[in-house]
Amino acid sequence: MTVETAMRPLYLEDLAKGQKFHTGSVSVTADAIKAFAAEFDPQPFHLDEAAAAKSLFGGLAASGWHTAAITMRLFVDGDLRLAGGIVGAGLDEMRWTKPVYPGDALTLETEVLEMRPSKSRLDQGLIKVRNTVLNQRREPALVQVVNLLVQRRPAE
Amino acid sequence: MTVETAMRPLYLEDLAKGQKFHTGSVSVTADAIKAFAAEFDPQPFHLDEAAAAKSLFGGLAASGWHTAAITMRLFVDGDLRLAGGIVGAGLDEMRWTKPVYPGDALTLETEVLEMRPSKSRLDQGLIKVRNTVLNQRREPALVQVVNLLVQRRPAE
Repeated sequence: MTVETAMRPLYLEDLAKGQKFHTGSVSVTADAIKAFAAEFDPQPFHLDEAAAAKSLFGGLAASGWHTAAITMRLFVDGDLRLAGGIVGAGLDEMRWTKPVYPGDALTLETEVLEMRPSKSRLDQGLIKVRNTVLNQRREPALVQVVNLLVQRRPAE
Repeated sequence: MTVETAMRPLYLEDLAKGQKFHTGSVSVTADAIKAFAAEFDPQPFHLDEAAAAKSLFGGLAASGWHTAAITMRLFVDGDLRLAGGIVGAGLDEMRWTKPVYPGDALTLETEVLEMRPSKSRLDQGLIKVRNTVLNQRREPALVQVVNLLVQRRPAE
């Protein structure tokens, strides 16, 4: 990515298989883990250090859905700027490959896997990307293959 | 599900293909949509009614990751009570099939698709379930196929 392309929103025609995009990083705190869990995933290993120590996580760990939500925040703030925003049609898969613990710093790498025009909408296309969330040791914590709606470049 | 089985936590040996589980329902408010989006998916169509009216959603719509997080909350509070809690290994797929708008009431239906013992851990197994989130018109808003870690029943 050059600075110029990072500033302009991208259309389907700007994307190519193998392109990579990056994001900043987010540090995950124990308070954030517990707040998310209290609302969306109230299980002991996401809420309480002592209970979590006895669980298969071995300590307080973020809900996988919290990690997925943080992934989306990184994605929105990252350097893949799509015309029309980031609108997901779905995931082909998602794996939680490492637990996320308090103090972990997460960053996201995106690789374009496929692009195709929509069959039904002349102004739209679909791209498939692989998102890999890495922790501060560069261990993948979450991997997802996402299908995104992308606008086609309007005729000049 | 009988009342008796709903009260006892379930082990791998208690589960069978085709079993169905249900949850209560959650109403989604505009405030909740905006609060989630402000933290995890700050795009105009999830934050602002006027901007959303001009978007492909036609009005303020929940982030797909908000709907996914609500799905987890319904799942945790529902009648599938697994020994050891609900611990996901990953998703085989997830589709956002209808936008979720303020005032929508969501409920979750779960169907067991597969069960198998773990090859590496004698005390664990894996099940695959299909989760379908329905709105108040019984339209599917989100469909996901989830792989869950499940404990095996300890020897007596």
